[in-house]
Amino acid sequence: MEIKIVKDIMGANEQIAQKNRQLFDRNQVFVVNVMASPGAGKTSLILETIKRLKGRVKVGVVEGDISSSLDAEAIGKEGVPVVQINTGGECHLDANMTSTALGSLPLGDIRLLLIENVGNLVCPAEFNLGEDLRVLVSSTPEGDDKPFKYPLMFHEADVVLINKIDLLPYLKFDVDAFTKTIKGINQKVEIFPLSCTTGEGVDRWISWLLSQVKG
Amino acid sequence: MEIKIVKDIMGANEQIAQKNRQLFDRNQVFVVNVMASPGAGKTSLILETIKRLKGRVKVGVVEGDISSSLDAEAIGKEGVPVVQINTGGECHLDANMTSTALGSLPLGDIRLLLIENVGNLVCPAEFNLGEDLRVLVSSTPEGDDKPFKYPLMFHEADVVLINKIDLLPYLKFDVDAFTKTIKGINQKVEIFPLSCTTGEGVDRWISWLLSQVKG
Repeated sequence: MEIKIVKDIMGANEQIAQKNRQLFDRNQVFVVNVMASPGAGKTSLILETIKRLKGRVKVGVVEGDISSSLDAEAIGKEGVPVVQINTGGECHLDANMTSTALGSLPLGDIRLLLIENVGNLVCPAEFNLGEDLRVLVSSTPEGDDKPFKYPLMFHEADVVLINKIDLLPYLKFDVDAFTKTIKGINQKVEIFPLSCTTGEGVDRWISWLLSQVKG
Repeated sequence: MEIKIVKDIMGANEQIAQKNRQLFDRNQVFVVNVMASPGAGKTSLILETIKRLKGRVKVGVVEGDISSSLDAEAIGKEGVPVVQINTGGECHLDANMTSTALGSLPLGDIRLLLIENVGNLVCPAEFNLGEDLRVLVSSTPEGDDKPFKYPLMFHEADVVLINKIDLLPYLKFDVDAFTKTIKGINQKVEIFPLSCTTGEGVDRWISWLLSQVKG
């Protein structure tokens, strides 16, 4: 009985995700679903990405949070179209919430849509939003054992950004071991170490993202 | 329809939580539910707490993880009884999973039971396990805006441990502002800044915890 309900929810989500996908295709929008633990640096990554793409690619943003519009306000200051979704307790975005937000975005004017998911290493991995790319921001202070504990998220990611590498001198975090563990779960994943605070490594991520958007 | 299902799940959880509560009372076990984002330092906190209570209070541990038994192995080395729960994808512990684990613990020999929940700032706050105390480990690299974004977790906590204060020199994190925000959501909460890496502030937490266990 319970399993059936979960199946129905997932089936319904997948249908709406396909509709989102068609809408993105019609408007030639490349869509990135940004996922992470709370405080790993999703908003900082989005802000850095917007700044470095200014004048090169038109960006729009969907901000998912359980509550508050702090992040949408910060992003709005960069002069890009942004819509806030407050999930009202839900621990992830789903395709339907995303669909609702899309009505408030000028999709025809956007080439790249960044969707910031709710801070959570578990549930968002299960919900397709219709995106092209799943980016997992994993920050060094969280520890290099996270892929063992949250394998689905690392398995589902197309890209892992190892954020906050500026803190490496003060932490026990083995970048090589972390990379090896992730590759063991997910062979096709792209991995970029970077710091949104110092800017180190961000250019490599931006170049790769541009190649995907324009590819 | 959907709301009814959620109500039933919550009602069933509450009933089992009450049974856990009675079992804890019969065995005079004080129970702490430790919650946090992934990588905030729940396991380090539990290890520090066990070490400092050695010879003073008999401790047992329930380790909740989606997958792996890394944390239970680390804790087992400290010579305390420990049971691992693998939730198999579930993003939180519930009263029933906890109840199942209790059968494998020598409750009559334990005075303090530490339950490490799944790393998640959202869902665990909604599930009573029958505990005496809800402890939220919130680490400085996550940022001081977290109470705005995950208000339920901060509202439900009896204690907030501000972990990783050794990293404060390298971060933008305002401890006073963070404390003020938490108190605005939850007036009765106890707050202890500490570092499980350097040990700073841990004694204050331990003294307070002891006063609760023995009170």
